[in-house]
Amino acid sequence: MKKHVLIIGAGGVGQVAAHKCAQHNRLLGDIHIASRNIKKCLAVIDSVHEKGALQNPKGVLKAHQLDAMDTAAVRRLIEHTGAQIVINLGHAFVNMSVLQACIETGAAYLDTAIHEDPEKICETPPWYANHEWKRKAICADRGITAILGCGFDPGVVNAYAALAVHEYFDTVDSIDIIDINAGSHGKYFATNFNPEINFREFTGQVWSWQNSQWRSNKMFEIQRTDDLPVVGKQTAYLTGHDELHSLSQNLNVPNIRFWMGFGEHYINVFTVLRNIGLLSEKPVTLDNGQQVVPLQLVKAVLPDPASLAPGYIGKTCIGNLVKGHKDGQAREVFVYNVADHVEAFAEVGSQGISYTAGVPAVAAAILIAQGTWDVQKMVNVEELPYQPFINLMNQMGLTTHLREAGQDDCLISFDLAELDAS
Amino acid sequence: MKKHVLIIGAGGVGQVAAHKCAQHNRLLGDIHIASRNIKKCLAVIDSVHEKGALQNPKGVLKAHQLDAMDTAAVRRLIEHTGAQIVINLGHAFVNMSVLQACIETGAAYLDTAIHEDPEKICETPPWYANHEWKRKAICADRGITAILGCGFDPGVVNAYAALAVHEYFDTVDSIDIIDINAGSHGKYFATNFNPEINFREFTGQVWSWQNSQWRSNKMFEIQRTDDLPVVGKQTAYLTGHDELHSLSQNLNVPNIRFWMGFGEHYINVFTVLRNIGLLSEKPVTLDNGQQVVPLQLVKAVLPDPASLAPGYIGKTCIGNLVKGHKDGQAREVFVYNVADHVEAFAEVGSQGISYTAGVPAVAAAILIAQGTWDVQKMVNVEELPYQPFINLMNQMGLTTHLREAGQDDCLISFDLAELDAS
Repeated sequence: MKKHVLIIGAGGVGQVAAHKCAQHNRLLGDIHIASRNIKKCLAVIDSVHEKGALQNPKGVLKAHQLDAMDTAAVRRLIEHTGAQIVINLGHAFVNMSVLQACIETGAAYLDTAIHEDPEKICETPPWYANHEWKRKAICADRGITAILGCGFDPGVVNAYAALAVHEYFDTVDSIDIIDINAGSHGKYFATNFNPEINFREFTGQVWSWQNSQWRSNKMFEIQRTDDLPVVGKQTAYLTGHDELHSLSQNLNVPNIRFWMGFGEHYINVFTVLRNIGLLSEKPVTLDNGQQVVPLQLVKAVLPDPASLAPGYIGKTCIGNLVKGHKDGQAREVFVYNVADHVEAFAEVGSQGISYTAGVPAVAAAILIAQGTWDVQKMVNVEELPYQPFINLMNQMGLTTHLREAGQDDCLISFDLAELDAS
Repeated sequence: MKKHVLIIGAGGVGQVAAHKCAQHNRLLGDIHIASRNIKKCLAVIDSVHEKGALQNPKGVLKAHQLDAMDTAAVRRLIEHTGAQIVINLGHAFVNMSVLQACIETGAAYLDTAIHEDPEKICETPPWYANHEWKRKAICADRGITAILGCGFDPGVVNAYAALAVHEYFDTVDSIDIIDINAGSHGKYFATNFNPEINFREFTGQVWSWQNSQWRSNKMFEIQRTDDLPVVGKQTAYLTGHDELHSLSQNLNVPNIRFWMGFGEHYINVFTVLRNIGLLSEKPVTLDNGQQVVPLQLVKAVLPDPASLAPGYIGKTCIGNLVKGHKDGQAREVFVYNVADHVEAFAEVGSQGISYTAGVPAVAAAILIAQGTWDVQKMVNVEELPYQPFINLMNQMGLTTHLREAGQDDCLISFDLAELDAS
């Protein structure tokens, strides 16, 4: 049985993961957290102690300085700590170096977002095939468990897609993943993560899987408005997202789209900044001769995303609207989670968006430790048993619900003893 | 008779002034243009030659490098050139040094905007009394002609106020100066003059003269919509402006307000930039350690105002809406000018806003040269005879019109022979 966890990354999601690992350290064993900036790791550890989050108060919880771009350094840290599960929550450029270190050491690998080449940001589909899936064969050869994209989206929504396909439909026509943050940080404007990355996602083309092929649109070109559980009427925009690629390959569904909610205010500010040229990564020359990258200045004047958590209120709603047929009848279900920013902050000191990304990663680590998900190959979440994952998240603070016309919304959970027996 | 002109400043308005002086150089004599950057002066001179604008082709037209903050340097240039009329179109910080040089040399002084102390931008009323009017006594003592604020607004609108008070009303209740630029530069966003100055005007309080006292409001707090000649329905916002101060002191009118037209798009962009902190003059520190003043970066990414002129289309409408009583009847008149960006560019190579500011300054210089306005003291435009000024501008490209309910709009001009005889 694998145990002992190394968390790479000490941002908002890393903090959630550290708290959640601490809450389950009788099973997970030693917990190590590493970042380029060890002070961030120490702050996370302080936060875990403040909340008294360690299930086994005598358990190991240690901070490490690490350049995760350096495969050898990651390998040495894995060996030094004896970690058998690596939860990679670092920035998007380190996936391949961390994965390589796991391959070399035999540790299980987990991440929550696709790899990005620093030189080729915003790559086009096929996304996972650009980097991750090129290591599928070696992972299978060496028996390496590598679970890709195991935050909320990608991650939980992949499990929801598998759930719908396997349990609610004979044929699925479309899966629309809808991601709404109806929370408010109380600032005039802020991004929920690094503005340099955040804005970059929306400046180019967006991709969707429609009629079993890739289709490209402009950002903010296509929108939908839904009346959603708890958060009510919300408008979301067609956006490209990692999981569209793996779902399009792993499930036989002709239409898979991702929709990200944006308020009019967000879009307006984004549009003004972009059109004026303030989101550019190319330096401009000021009258005084300074060379300045506009996007770096915008980052400097916007609130630090980490500073938003204490004042964040409201809820997120993320789910899959699935349409298809069952027993010859048209059917439509919405499988979703609602998370609360205030509750997340009270429990783990991060806001709700970090919470929804960090909890699934730790749930996956627990399932690896328990053996259920220790599959000794590279997989995306839709390829794994979704029942224990959904059950475990129900216990860990992310509940899964089902909305279907004519019925009350209900919690989804599984009687696993019965399932195991079947 | 004074002649020989020194123009200080080679921006858009300086260019208009140079062309207009050239068109009248049989009367005005030698024309000199000075700027910190002599290349700008040379470009203006090239433009004058390209248009064949010199009325006397053999007349003197020369460029000079000048730091106009340096009184001694200005005095030396006045002495060196033999200029007897100085048209100060430099930035707002040089008024007092240039005026002092005129006082020391006996040259007549003209400007188009109020003096600003570099350390005390956006001063509160009483504006002219803060700096200019402190030199009234010495100008009177030495017989120095100093005409303050002689562009369009302040300037022409001051003459319109005097015209209304003297010719159309027994008592005036209110003067609303409305400044609309209904032109389009075809860019997503641009300011019509230096963005650092432009934005600064609107970031604080705005002042108006109401019920015979100063009143303060926030920018964009109070708006009005008027159906105006040529430019149609336009929304304008209560703004502070130089001329409110002198008019409040020189005319017995209880309500004098200034309204600047802004499109919703302008206000939106301005609001986003301001609220995010990008209009700040205080340096911020980037991740790479650079210290950057946000407003300077915004200036660098916005189009150079001087670059807008070739593509500028549409018209400006600036005028005074005056309400009061005449012969016991309520009366309301709108005295206005409409200028055309394309026509201005074709004639003098600048857009319409520069044109409306530069032509009145040269008209004033001509009236000084002719003696009519060579009053040998410091005055604001409303204290001077408005008839010859309005007549002369009619000939120089800025026509004055009157709108009154129930009548067709008509040109305002005066039979000066008859006036002189009366």
